[in-house]
Amino acid sequence: MGTSFDLSAQNDSVNIYECEVHLKFRIIEDKLTIDKQDTDALIEALVDAYTYGDDEYLESLESQINIHEIQALEASPEMRRQLIRLRNCHKFA
Amino acid sequence: MGTSFDLSAQNDSVNIYECEVHLKFRIIEDKLTIDKQDTDALIEALVDAYTYGDDEYLESLESQINIHEIQALEASPEMRRQLIRLRNCHKFA
Repeated sequence: MGTSFDLSAQNDSVNIYECEVHLKFRIIEDKLTIDKQDTDALIEALVDAYTYGDDEYLESLESQINIHEIQALEASPEMRRQLIRLRNCHKFA
Repeated sequence: MGTSFDLSAQNDSVNIYECEVHLKFRIIEDKLTIDKQDTDALIEALVDAYTYGDDEYLESLESQINIHEIQALEASPEMRRQLIRLRNCHKFA
């Protein structure tokens, strides 16, 4: 009876979010770089280039984001464990 | 008559590409970070986090890319100038 536990306060600190990001941009690239790489490596290289921002090599056209909080149970065990660790740090800090 | 100019060979080196990247992922974040930032800053922060790769803070769900070459005339004057510079470097290197 004396061990009340303020879940709402703890939930205000860190959460798990599901994000969908859509980026459209123009980039100057070497044809060989585009043709030779597999899809994952190409996405990594292009997203990495995008994060450097606009210059004479890259021109952003559109960027959209859709983000919403999800329940911890929907995420992987690794993320859930990390969330518990972080929430405990916040609680006892 | 004696100044032939091999456009096809020069076009093989660097080009301008239009890219659409769609990323879906889960991330552990501070609620304040999500709420306080404007859309552009939030996209930048989240895409930056994405480029670090998966760990206990981030879990990739989907990533898609659509990429195609565009004509130089469709791009900005800055990109066109840079393209000409780069193609000339390739030609005379």
